[in-house]
Amino acid sequence: MRDYASSSLKQLAACIARREVSVEDVARAGIAHIEEYEPAVYAWQHFDPQHVIEQARRLDAQPHQGLLYGLPIGVKDLMDTADMPTTYGSPIYENYRPLVDAACVAASRSAGALLMGKTVTTEFATFQPGPTRNPHGATDHTPGGSSSGSAAAVASGMVPAAFATQTAGSIVRPAAYCGVVGYKPTFGTLPLAGIKSLSPSLDTVGVLTRTVADAAFFIGALARLPLSSMLAPEAASCLRVGICRTPNWERASDATRNAIERAARLLERSGAVLCDIDLPAPCGGLTDAQIRIMSYEASAAFEPEARSHAEGFSKAFAAVLEAGRGIDGTSYVAAQALAAASRQMVAGVFETVDILLASSTEGEAPAGLDATGDPIFNRMWSLLGNPCVHVPLGAGPGGMPIGVTLIGPRWADASTLAAANLLESTFASIN
Amino acid sequence: MRDYASSSLKQLAACIARREVSVEDVARAGIAHIEEYEPAVYAWQHFDPQHVIEQARRLDAQPHQGLLYGLPIGVKDLMDTADMPTTYGSPIYENYRPLVDAACVAASRSAGALLMGKTVTTEFATFQPGPTRNPHGATDHTPGGSSSGSAAAVASGMVPAAFATQTAGSIVRPAAYCGVVGYKPTFGTLPLAGIKSLSPSLDTVGVLTRTVADAAFFIGALARLPLSSMLAPEAASCLRVGICRTPNWERASDATRNAIERAARLLERSGAVLCDIDLPAPCGGLTDAQIRIMSYEASAAFEPEARSHAEGFSKAFAAVLEAGRGIDGTSYVAAQALAAASRQMVAGVFETVDILLASSTEGEAPAGLDATGDPIFNRMWSLLGNPCVHVPLGAGPGGMPIGVTLIGPRWADASTLAAANLLESTFASIN
Repeated sequence: MRDYASSSLKQLAACIARREVSVEDVARAGIAHIEEYEPAVYAWQHFDPQHVIEQARRLDAQPHQGLLYGLPIGVKDLMDTADMPTTYGSPIYENYRPLVDAACVAASRSAGALLMGKTVTTEFATFQPGPTRNPHGATDHTPGGSSSGSAAAVASGMVPAAFATQTAGSIVRPAAYCGVVGYKPTFGTLPLAGIKSLSPSLDTVGVLTRTVADAAFFIGALARLPLSSMLAPEAASCLRVGICRTPNWERASDATRNAIERAARLLERSGAVLCDIDLPAPCGGLTDAQIRIMSYEASAAFEPEARSHAEGFSKAFAAVLEAGRGIDGTSYVAAQALAAASRQMVAGVFETVDILLASSTEGEAPAGLDATGDPIFNRMWSLLGNPCVHVPLGAGPGGMPIGVTLIGPRWADASTLAAANLLESTFASIN
Repeated sequence: MRDYASSSLKQLAACIARREVSVEDVARAGIAHIEEYEPAVYAWQHFDPQHVIEQARRLDAQPHQGLLYGLPIGVKDLMDTADMPTTYGSPIYENYRPLVDAACVAASRSAGALLMGKTVTTEFATFQPGPTRNPHGATDHTPGGSSSGSAAAVASGMVPAAFATQTAGSIVRPAAYCGVVGYKPTFGTLPLAGIKSLSPSLDTVGVLTRTVADAAFFIGALARLPLSSMLAPEAASCLRVGICRTPNWERASDATRNAIERAARLLERSGAVLCDIDLPAPCGGLTDAQIRIMSYEASAAFEPEARSHAEGFSKAFAAVLEAGRGIDGTSYVAAQALAAASRQMVAGVFETVDILLASSTEGEAPAGLDATGDPIFNRMWSLLGNPCVHVPLGAGPGGMPIGVTLIGPRWADASTLAAANLLESTFASIN
């Protein structure tokens, strides 16, 4: 078969539907690719080739139906799977086997997807790294986190799509560091049932893919939304783009500043009108508010494990929970009230522009595997709940991937993806 | 010991802290009361007196600490408990024993609470009733749902407080039918981890109690919020109250209309200024939007069970999921967008009034046990996420309990409870 690394999800699905290739062929190609790259990348928490082949044969034996029929995907190990172990990246859950799948996993199976395995997550989707390496670079760099394995698996071509989740910056940051597309839908788009809860005001299910079109196709299929059909360039022409140098801009490296500049010029070239946007002043408090809400909610969510299995926490995670226990309800409520007010103000900003252009990370992936980088530029968007798409724009001065985030109005995922698609295709056309 | 039915939670906690009564004494009094009333009420899904005594002895052997130390509570069987079975009201989970507690259960244990058992929930907190009877009335009436067992247990004095959850009307409706206080905090106040997910945009943890002060004390302790200390009558004087005859008002019975009128006169007597409030026109769509969001999200959340255990669903629940699968993402997104816009508009309404007064139910609890009543008047508040307190106001013409809902601005739970406390105490003073 043609290597699936060169097909879009939509094309591959069409090939399988026409029976030009069997699901088992797709599975075997994927397994071969994983077996080649995994020893250097460590993207998988659980990978069992025999189980993949069995799934593929069951799919081949059924009538072909479902928009994701036969498409190989990775599942972040923060998501429950009844037929594969689920660790949440923690030794506490080393031998855990959930009774049923997570809801988004079940939805992908009902749509016909082929689950290649579980990808590495940092401990409970926070900051203690797993073993995964960034597929780029001559020496070891972090793939980012917490969706480390999903990002590295997609970046190394092991799977064309992998589930990810974001609470602070766990979709956009690993996408940026690994040079893939990261799509965080509007908060609430995909179900959280069966995903280990970290901070329910923030936890968001999304996907990592090679292209914007693949991200739209995948999430659109699961949420029954027409995201894929609305990517046409004309839908994104005459875009009004606001360049949004968010709070903490002083922490953006030259690589990040250049990427914003590059994206602005590319969008201009494709007909967009650009302006600078200063967010209303209260938005300056959103990053701190996100940290408070995440800490407070995480300490509440992990009170059960803290009571019975605290010895299984890393020091870093225990410190997150300890910090959360120190935040009183009044401070938490003030952070939530700021978020609610800011959502109104940012909705007002979107009356003057269609899309915001902002930085994804401080810079290229840091060297080393001891940390997963800082989500400083992602936290506020996670709290606001707006859809975000990280678009890779080649390499930075250090030779590692770099890119930008496009942010749209809440529930306007289709137009956000259309703008991202425009940027991606304009960049591709000049490279 | 003094029967705990006559003490407030705060008083009982103080007695235990001064060691005037042991936790085991409290436990034995509670067990005796449950054993007397349970054969007629069927409030408990799981009740093991020996396990309660063991917990009580462990608590007595520890240093007394925690705001809820020794207080006996009921836990809705939608919430995970590692030391008691957890069924979610479904035969699918008949023998299920979760690995860890739900986060709110763990929080109550960390605060020292004594867990008396698991209270009956309708199937997955929807509409298929359990066996629970309303403690009021000469013949069988529904206790409402889905927090049926919690409401009946509190109403019959088996426990002074019981956890409840609301997605449509599952706190306020059973509170109204059983004549107890039902407090649904602002959406997001207490953690959802370890509670079976039904509709994550709506699912809210709250409590059923005998008094507003008890509800404030209980939730305040768990959320580290100063709700209890802000109930003083002066905090609620000169209240501006908006009488809110919500959409579907034509479905309010005379009993309900009279309860609104009674509440208005009581609040006026205590110094409140009343006016009529017509919500902005788009709010008329919120009840339908809530139904669409709940159906869409429930069908997503239960896709795992639908794939592997569909034979365990009731016909009614299967129909809910089937309806949800028929809703496309665009319709869901439109409902979410309406909710977001309406939250802004309702925030504007709260610039002119401090509190809204609205109906809790169509009327008194319907006779019979085949259904749990209609949450028609609760759905929009669940979607908006505002704090709601049901305040009982005696009996209706049918001799069953009746009352009203007070609604405050999002995150203004303290002032909402203060208004409810004012209404409750004014009512008590004239009866």
